[in-house]
Amino acid sequence: MIRNVLLFSEGSREMRDVLGGKGANLADMTNHGLPVPPGFTITTASCNRYYEEGQRLQKALIDEVEQAMQQLESMTGKVFGGKENPLLVSVRSGAAISMPGMMDTILNLGLNDETVQGLIDQSKDKRFALDCYRRFIQMFGNVVLGIEHHVFEIRLQALKEQADLTDDTQVTAEQWEQLVSEYKKLIKKHTKEDFPQDVKTQLLQAIEAVFRSWNNQRAKIYRKINNIPDSIGTAVNVQMMVFGNLGDDCGTGVAFTRNPSTGEKKIFGEFLVNAQGEDVVAGIRTPRPIAELAQTMPAIYEQFVQLCNLLEHTYKDMQDIEFTVERGKLYILQTRNGKRTSQASLKILVDLVDEGVIDTKEALRRVDAEQLGQSLHRRIDPDAKVEVAATGLPASPGSGSGSIVFTADHAEEQMKKGLRTILVRPETTPEDIHGILAAEAILTARGGMTSHAAVVARGMGKPCVCGCEQLSFDPENNCLWIGEQALKEGDWITVDGSTGRVILGAVPMIDPELTEEMKKILEWADQYRKLLVMSNADNPVDARRSVEYGAQGVGLCRTEHMFMDPERIPVVQNMILADSFADRKQALDQLLPMQEEDFYGILLAMDGLPVTIRLLDPPLHEFLPRIDETTSGSMDEAIVRKVKALHESNPMLGHRGCRLGITYPEIYEMQVNAICRATKRLIAGGMNPIPEIMIPLIGHVNELRILREMVERVIQKEGLADRNIPIGTMIELPRAAVTADQIAQHADFFSFGTNDLTQTTFAFSRDDAEGKFLQVYVDQEILPANPFMTLDVDGVGQLIRMGVEKGKKTNAQLKTGICGEHGGDPKSIAFCHEVGLKYVSCSPFRLPIARVAAAQVAIAKEAGC
Amino acid sequence: MIRNVLLFSEGSREMRDVLGGKGANLADMTNHGLPVPPGFTITTASCNRYYEEGQRLQKALIDEVEQAMQQLESMTGKVFGGKENPLLVSVRSGAAISMPGMMDTILNLGLNDETVQGLIDQSKDKRFALDCYRRFIQMFGNVVLGIEHHVFEIRLQALKEQADLTDDTQVTAEQWEQLVSEYKKLIKKHTKEDFPQDVKTQLLQAIEAVFRSWNNQRAKIYRKINNIPDSIGTAVNVQMMVFGNLGDDCGTGVAFTRNPSTGEKKIFGEFLVNAQGEDVVAGIRTPRPIAELAQTMPAIYEQFVQLCNLLEHTYKDMQDIEFTVERGKLYILQTRNGKRTSQASLKILVDLVDEGVIDTKEALRRVDAEQLGQSLHRRIDPDAKVEVAATGLPASPGSGSGSIVFTADHAEEQMKKGLRTILVRPETTPEDIHGILAAEAILTARGGMTSHAAVVARGMGKPCVCGCEQLSFDPENNCLWIGEQALKEGDWITVDGSTGRVILGAVPMIDPELTEEMKKILEWADQYRKLLVMSNADNPVDARRSVEYGAQGVGLCRTEHMFMDPERIPVVQNMILADSFADRKQALDQLLPMQEEDFYGILLAMDGLPVTIRLLDPPLHEFLPRIDETTSGSMDEAIVRKVKALHESNPMLGHRGCRLGITYPEIYEMQVNAICRATKRLIAGGMNPIPEIMIPLIGHVNELRILREMVERVIQKEGLADRNIPIGTMIELPRAAVTADQIAQHADFFSFGTNDLTQTTFAFSRDDAEGKFLQVYVDQEILPANPFMTLDVDGVGQLIRMGVEKGKKTNAQLKTGICGEHGGDPKSIAFCHEVGLKYVSCSPFRLPIARVAAAQVAIAKEAGC
Repeated sequence: MIRNVLLFSEGSREMRDVLGGKGANLADMTNHGLPVPPGFTITTASCNRYYEEGQRLQKALIDEVEQAMQQLESMTGKVFGGKENPLLVSVRSGAAISMPGMMDTILNLGLNDETVQGLIDQSKDKRFALDCYRRFIQMFGNVVLGIEHHVFEIRLQALKEQADLTDDTQVTAEQWEQLVSEYKKLIKKHTKEDFPQDVKTQLLQAIEAVFRSWNNQRAKIYRKINNIPDSIGTAVNVQMMVFGNLGDDCGTGVAFTRNPSTGEKKIFGEFLVNAQGEDVVAGIRTPRPIAELAQTMPAIYEQFVQLCNLLEHTYKDMQDIEFTVERGKLYILQTRNGKRTSQASLKILVDLVDEGVIDTKEALRRVDAEQLGQSLHRRIDPDAKVEVAATGLPASPGSGSGSIVFTADHAEEQMKKGLRTILVRPETTPEDIHGILAAEAILTARGGMTSHAAVVARGMGKPCVCGCEQLSFDPENNCLWIGEQALKEGDWITVDGSTGRVILGAVPMIDPELTEEMKKILEWADQYRKLLVMSNADNPVDARRSVEYGAQGVGLCRTEHMFMDPERIPVVQNMILADSFADRKQALDQLLPMQEEDFYGILLAMDGLPVTIRLLDPPLHEFLPRIDETTSGSMDEAIVRKVKALHESNPMLGHRGCRLGITYPEIYEMQVNAICRATKRLIAGGMNPIPEIMIPLIGHVNELRILREMVERVIQKEGLADRNIPIGTMIELPRAAVTADQIAQHADFFSFGTNDLTQTTFAFSRDDAEGKFLQVYVDQEILPANPFMTLDVDGVGQLIRMGVEKGKKTNAQLKTGICGEHGGDPKSIAFCHEVGLKYVSCSPFRLPIARVAAAQVAIAKEAGC
Repeated sequence: MIRNVLLFSEGSREMRDVLGGKGANLADMTNHGLPVPPGFTITTASCNRYYEEGQRLQKALIDEVEQAMQQLESMTGKVFGGKENPLLVSVRSGAAISMPGMMDTILNLGLNDETVQGLIDQSKDKRFALDCYRRFIQMFGNVVLGIEHHVFEIRLQALKEQADLTDDTQVTAEQWEQLVSEYKKLIKKHTKEDFPQDVKTQLLQAIEAVFRSWNNQRAKIYRKINNIPDSIGTAVNVQMMVFGNLGDDCGTGVAFTRNPSTGEKKIFGEFLVNAQGEDVVAGIRTPRPIAELAQTMPAIYEQFVQLCNLLEHTYKDMQDIEFTVERGKLYILQTRNGKRTSQASLKILVDLVDEGVIDTKEALRRVDAEQLGQSLHRRIDPDAKVEVAATGLPASPGSGSGSIVFTADHAEEQMKKGLRTILVRPETTPEDIHGILAAEAILTARGGMTSHAAVVARGMGKPCVCGCEQLSFDPENNCLWIGEQALKEGDWITVDGSTGRVILGAVPMIDPELTEEMKKILEWADQYRKLLVMSNADNPVDARRSVEYGAQGVGLCRTEHMFMDPERIPVVQNMILADSFADRKQALDQLLPMQEEDFYGILLAMDGLPVTIRLLDPPLHEFLPRIDETTSGSMDEAIVRKVKALHESNPMLGHRGCRLGITYPEIYEMQVNAICRATKRLIAGGMNPIPEIMIPLIGHVNELRILREMVERVIQKEGLADRNIPIGTMIELPRAAVTADQIAQHADFFSFGTNDLTQTTFAFSRDDAEGKFLQVYVDQEILPANPFMTLDVDGVGQLIRMGVEKGKKTNAQLKTGICGEHGGDPKSIAFCHEVGLKYVSCSPFRLPIARVAAAQVAIAKEAGC
């Protein structure tokens, strides 16, 4: 028979899934001989069964609870519902994953009109006992019977006003007695039933209430935010009450074993003399710093410090401890791993390693890789008060403040004057590039996470908020409306690309930094990880930055951003507008030396490291201006005609990638030519350039066969045949994945382009889906996560696995990696390791995340998880 | 050692791959004792080796040819290059697959200044011998030495003019002798070398020339058109010459054993007395009908008729025979299966079965299923002279003539007057539906094979040509330009949706018909096929038509076309424009009875047969008017706003299919409700409606789980739970295929939507790809075929296979089928059979194709191919 109820002494630390975190810790502390008030835990499975049975407590459970109460009575020598020496208990929730404050607790359970007399006799403190009783009725009424808190509070306030009292401690026993009586009437009025005098009824109803609180609104939201499954359920801990409010040799407090803000190794917390725990939390009285306990109760303090050390060593982590002192005796009510800031988190890990408490593997295991990455962008001081005016998509992380400009030219002008601007546009086009470059941050009203603004901003590491639909442009008055607020050019705003917030005015910022702790952790990570970590970098600045952040090469160098450079755009447009091969060739001849410089710079920055250069990928119309109602009149007719000719109803599925290379081979030839020339110049200068050439959007082996021949021909012509420049392809179409065995015969490497692969596998246009239905899908849990953020292992992942397996079957030397945005996502990186990829490539700022995540999965796999 | 050369007597009919079709037939006829001039065949492999060796004849081949010539000499008693009784030969091409007229032939080879004297002595006809010689030099000069034909012809013409002759037969021996001398000088002049007198040199050069002709321009194009691989090569047949031009007891002719136009069982052909074969082909003299041979040479005719019967029985097919009579002796030079019209083809097959020559399986094997389908549309009389003004995409087959109208309203007005119109539009929108319905055919300037016009037209069975880019609209002059030609409303044009032709004026049409032969063949097909054949039908008319054509149910009933009905569009638009659930519900309540009628009609038409109804699929903006420069001013502001809000950058990957059902469940609920109500009314009327409900665009199991629950809830509410209405899904996304095991747990059937699956697997937007790069891909053989026409077995096929296997793994009862356009394509149907699908579903007019193709693959598999 599976037991529903276990005494603390019957449980263990390993039973966290069954007993919840709190229950497992209480059991563990009990087993270690710590001063824990005795009690028992109702399992998480019981909670699930409660829901399965239509929210009814099972007979078996009730029996076991009664039995456990009897054992508790014999352990404490107290009697539940007894007139003398009554046993009072707390009833608390506790899931396997900590959800602090989300579920309900009932204290002082077991009091009724009879047992309160027993408590008076026992404590010799009528005022205390009646205070307990009224607290219990209030809590029970609220939590179990669902009567709102303020209904009771109003009565208490009225009583204090009548008696002209300011503080609860001034209330007399008789006044509490009167309040008890009023509270009971309130309960009768609201529930049409008497407050239950039967203590067993009290207990069972309280247990049910805790079960129910698993599905209250705030608990459900907390679980969703923290990706905690709904299915795990909560345990219920029933524990003998101890009292911190029996006099001045009593007290209660909460403490962290280290500073949760900074990580400093020093006990941090608060306590109150003569008080119950809830007083500390409720803020009714101002608690005193824990250090003062050394003066107030020196022996207790010393014992507490020892226990803190013991608990830290036992749980090998900073602890968050609740304690109570009852008549000079210290009780530990709860211990758990303490929440902390990301900064503190890293310091504590490094310190724990230095102290020999944990090893580097364990430290890495505990790093929140995602959190690590967040600290690498300039961001809004979390302590600053901000006025959020609107919210859009968090398209490129980091924050920027500046004065509003509506045009790219204006942004550039301002920058030349040394002024900071935020470029605000309905959406951006390639012609805005110089503005994006000049601005501190970008804000657009339209476009998704892969819109032009988003992609370019991420590439440049500029903060960007996209698709902020609350923005409304008013060209007549040359202003911008956010709701009722009109903003003009020159007004200051702040854009937070990490959260999507648009804030009025400037706000204080925190600069990004690779702290000493981070550096240490990243060094450890490099010792364990199997995956190479490469960067997505399109220019020398990004390339250099990525080396700083630990990149072992460039895994994706996109050439389209080079084409979008404002100086080049006219030449690129000439190339596209060319009606004849000769005209196009002429424009390409002009581009050749520019591209050569691009590649020279990047290969130089990455000297001795591989640089995977992807040939031109986007559809050509992306390099032409956009036509809409406002622009069509003023534009050159030839351009308008060409824009219309190049129009596609689904450009994502259109004439792009290697399809351009097939139909306009001269463009790819020019690019390969430029790569070869840059390589030769670097070799001549004594450097060691390692270019690799990547063909995008291959769907059929013949495309790669033809283009590889072309690339090899150019390399040969340029006299670089003996450098063995690797030639590979993106695997970003389902067809490429399922025919990878054919394609691998012509590829030196596969780079899984998971952005496009996700789009085509799901048939989700990222731009369209994120604004329209994808959020609904994630909210309704139709999808476990946004598949553009975390790789869809079931679907897209299967295709990647197939691609790797089939590819290696026909080409054992094949190098495989990933260069979509998933390359910087910890969960996705774990999958990449599992599936046997050789490298992940991500944006420079995500490199630390990738390094740690790669180490984490390597360590986990080594441990056999 | 692999032999390069085989005597006819050493070959056999089975060696077609090695000896080519002609060589294998000559061998076979030789072995059957037919009067075939002796000779030998050089294998197709020798041709490939010739190319592999850089277009040089191998020593081994030359040796074998010489040896074979010696054998030929001993068989004929003639001497190659002999002064007396010289052996003359023909050298002809002959690939494994017939390519009539595409490659080269040399006749009379072996003549030189000495042997011509031998021929004079032997034939006792100097004029004949010198004629042969000049023919040979001319042919050799042209075919082997590459001198253009007219260079020789001019000399012959000059000679005849000088001598005032009108006909070649009037030329004297001396004049031929003079021409021979002139021809030899011509050759010296053009090649700087003498005409080769050495007969072995002649022979080897001629063999090389035939090899080379394998890769001449017309042969390459013919192979591409007919999907003949370049790799199979041609054989070369060297055969003793016989002469039909030695006098009036000689002659030559070509005959079919049955009429190739009608299929009538009667020898059909032509002959010439005293002539060589090329005279018949060249049209220099007018040949006489074969029947007259009975008068001219009664014994020969009788022998020929017998041989025709023998050959037909041997080859079990209508034969195309070349014959020569040399001095009263009949020689068969060649026999092959004759080309024929599609009408003749069917009649011959049915007759051959009736005559007991072949069985029904063999007959079915030989049917060209695709050709069968073509005859089912009204089409332009192939004998009519037409003026093609422009060409677009053949979007919906069939042809229509009518007067041009530029608006849907005008088309409708004209129809009400009983007038036939062609609706010509830049592109169509849902608001044009009534015009498409009213017009004979549709012509658009923009849009691909899946554009609105194309889809709607195919659904209605209306001829349609799309994306005809030569059209240019001139609204100012209310006319349409095709090149220099201005067309006004009222001008007549003809649209050929089978070929994409746009023709000026009206042209004679042929009506579609299911002939007796077709009916017989379809009956046979039904006996063998394993696949069920269903139709894609959206209305009662199509449903009834499809039953006529043999549909066993409706495999795809699209509901969006119902929404596009002009009476509904305002209601549908209200539904879409609704800002609140209540407003939307009101519009849906209006649609409910209309949809009920739709389903009632179709279920009634298909009484007792399953009807798979697909819930709404396209993105909602398809039901709103399109906004462009010309319309935006005049439109209701609310509509403009909604159109903009619904705008998607890649609608194919956007908010459509089941994503609508998830976000607007009330739409799907209304549809299921309507299905249930129609079903109940039919049951009450004593009918047996069998609806099945299909959810489109499922990508994740949770979508289907949620929507299935919703559908079941409605069915339950309507009291139809015990009808067990099957609920299934389209598998049209790569993710659905790879996670089919999960999805199948909630599906009663899978219908592979191969249009969308092809789009997403390749990332080809059909609309964009076909106009831009897909043609290049097919032309350059990057893809073996347009994957929207013929299923891409390697890529998309793998996903289908995976979908079927995984689906059946978790749901053994799962019914699987296909409902994309591939469901009507023979090659794709073969794949469907192989992969174990239960049914194919296609448009009504393609049902006969599907029935035959399904039988063909069943027969082939049974035979173990």
